[in-house]
Amino acid sequence: MIITVTPNISLDKTLIVEGSFEIGKTHRVKDITFVPGGKGVNASRALLGLGYKAPVLGFLGGNAGKQVKSIFEEEGIICDPVWINGETRTCYNIVDTINKTQTEVLERGPAITREDIDLLKDKISKYLSRDTIVCMGGSLPLGAPIELYAELVELVKSKGGRVILDTSGKALEKGLDACPFAVKPNRAEVEAILNIKLDPNDKENIKNALNHFSNKGIELSVISMGKDGLFASYEGKYYRVTPPEDSNPVNAVGSGDSTVAGIALGLEQNLKIEEVLRLGAAMGTANVRTLKPGDVRKSDVEDILPKVEVTVI
Amino acid sequence: MIITVTPNISLDKTLIVEGSFEIGKTHRVKDITFVPGGKGVNASRALLGLGYKAPVLGFLGGNAGKQVKSIFEEEGIICDPVWINGETRTCYNIVDTINKTQTEVLERGPAITREDIDLLKDKISKYLSRDTIVCMGGSLPLGAPIELYAELVELVKSKGGRVILDTSGKALEKGLDACPFAVKPNRAEVEAILNIKLDPNDKENIKNALNHFSNKGIELSVISMGKDGLFASYEGKYYRVTPPEDSNPVNAVGSGDSTVAGIALGLEQNLKIEEVLRLGAAMGTANVRTLKPGDVRKSDVEDILPKVEVTVI
Repeated sequence: MIITVTPNISLDKTLIVEGSFEIGKTHRVKDITFVPGGKGVNASRALLGLGYKAPVLGFLGGNAGKQVKSIFEEEGIICDPVWINGETRTCYNIVDTINKTQTEVLERGPAITREDIDLLKDKISKYLSRDTIVCMGGSLPLGAPIELYAELVELVKSKGGRVILDTSGKALEKGLDACPFAVKPNRAEVEAILNIKLDPNDKENIKNALNHFSNKGIELSVISMGKDGLFASYEGKYYRVTPPEDSNPVNAVGSGDSTVAGIALGLEQNLKIEEVLRLGAAMGTANVRTLKPGDVRKSDVEDILPKVEVTVI
Repeated sequence: MIITVTPNISLDKTLIVEGSFEIGKTHRVKDITFVPGGKGVNASRALLGLGYKAPVLGFLGGNAGKQVKSIFEEEGIICDPVWINGETRTCYNIVDTINKTQTEVLERGPAITREDIDLLKDKISKYLSRDTIVCMGGSLPLGAPIELYAELVELVKSKGGRVILDTSGKALEKGLDACPFAVKPNRAEVEAILNIKLDPNDKENIKNALNHFSNKGIELSVISMGKDGLFASYEGKYYRVTPPEDSNPVNAVGSGDSTVAGIALGLEQNLKIEEVLRLGAAMGTANVRTLKPGDVRKSDVEDILPKVEVTVI
């Protein structure tokens, strides 16, 4: 089975204001949308689009946490949270449709304790077997040790399960120490931790970046590069995965998470690595066609899948 | 007894961002405060500061409504709401402490129905007698008829109670038709509905403005003018009420509502009109000394009270 783990789940609120958004002024909101956010959350939503129910695990707290839980129920997403003290964070995106600006304000969220982490580990353990694939990622909540992902990866591995880790910065670097089955950083995240520039047309440059991960013992290393698709290394081979150009992009947020969902589903179905990567790229591309992050439609995936090119480089 | 009625209660969220607030950028929040807001809400808070428990009545809905209810419980404010469908609105104040800007984003809130209004009227009725004073005000929620305040004023009057109405624009104009016992618009609200400029040093100009209300049969008409204090008419006399200049103003938001609270308390205690107005001005001034709207300290009121000048003009 597949589960997703998002330690820092947020309630993402899009506030579309009347008129122009100006600093120092008072604005009325003409439209609001609420959606639970976070990398694992988006991956679970993408999997649901393909009819696959992958429970969301993570921390929720307070009234915002209850609101997240009730939206999940409306969406049909299974959520099995650890309830903590404090209010789940809200992240705001203030949209001005006249000047086409988006201004983001991100709360920090509540601090978690060692006890909360132990409860999350108990919760994850319930789902673990040799067949479990865990999509895990996003930023760490306040109070979490920087080694949190390493600790959770060890837990999953101890029961024979596989982790796809998708995070950034120090949380990713520390997570690598526990050697997850797969990683899927994006271009900017790889550039930040390796302090290099990535060029999709420079094979050696890409292979060197992938080697950074595979040299640490990671079996499947994937770098997502937006419209330039995916680059991956697996069992000593390097792959370039090129999705078709999308004629009508709506919102690219959540594409990396949808890619992770596709990779997880491909692994769960024991597909060949080429097909695993193809499904990842197709789901990442399908995500671009809808407004909500992770809102992947099965018909879009079926349309895109045969158009994805996978080549050994 | 005193009760307060606020049809459009909000959850007021102050988000203090790290660094400069810029449109089109992503910002992290370094500090948040939540406080239930609305004119009657602030008046109840101000009364609690003087040890007087005036229940808050109004509409609440959803998780934001639950959050408002639980903050009231922490504050020790009694809240007896009508629960409605939809989410109580949240109003955001994004504070940039570097450039000293405040940017407000106000949600509209859920629409109320005729059934919700009838439930509110039942709720208000429980508290009504000849001794009841009702502080009522603020903007109207979506779906409310523009005559809502007139309807509620009629209800209170039918049981012999007195209403102090504090609202603006069309909601005030329509509310006047039902002839509440008292009104307390502020300078800007009077200027807007009468289409004039108010000059605190021009007695005739002020008296004419007060006459607009007393000519409609309103017994006590009060115009609040910030640092310039209050002007009032009662039983054919006109009063100017001048509070002492405050040496350390922190936040003036909620001063008008605290003034209403003081007037209500003075009326409830059967004080002479001069003392009623003095208490109103002292509570309005005390409010300026604290950050939270309506957060009036008894010691501040006792300090300010003897320094308030009340003269017949």
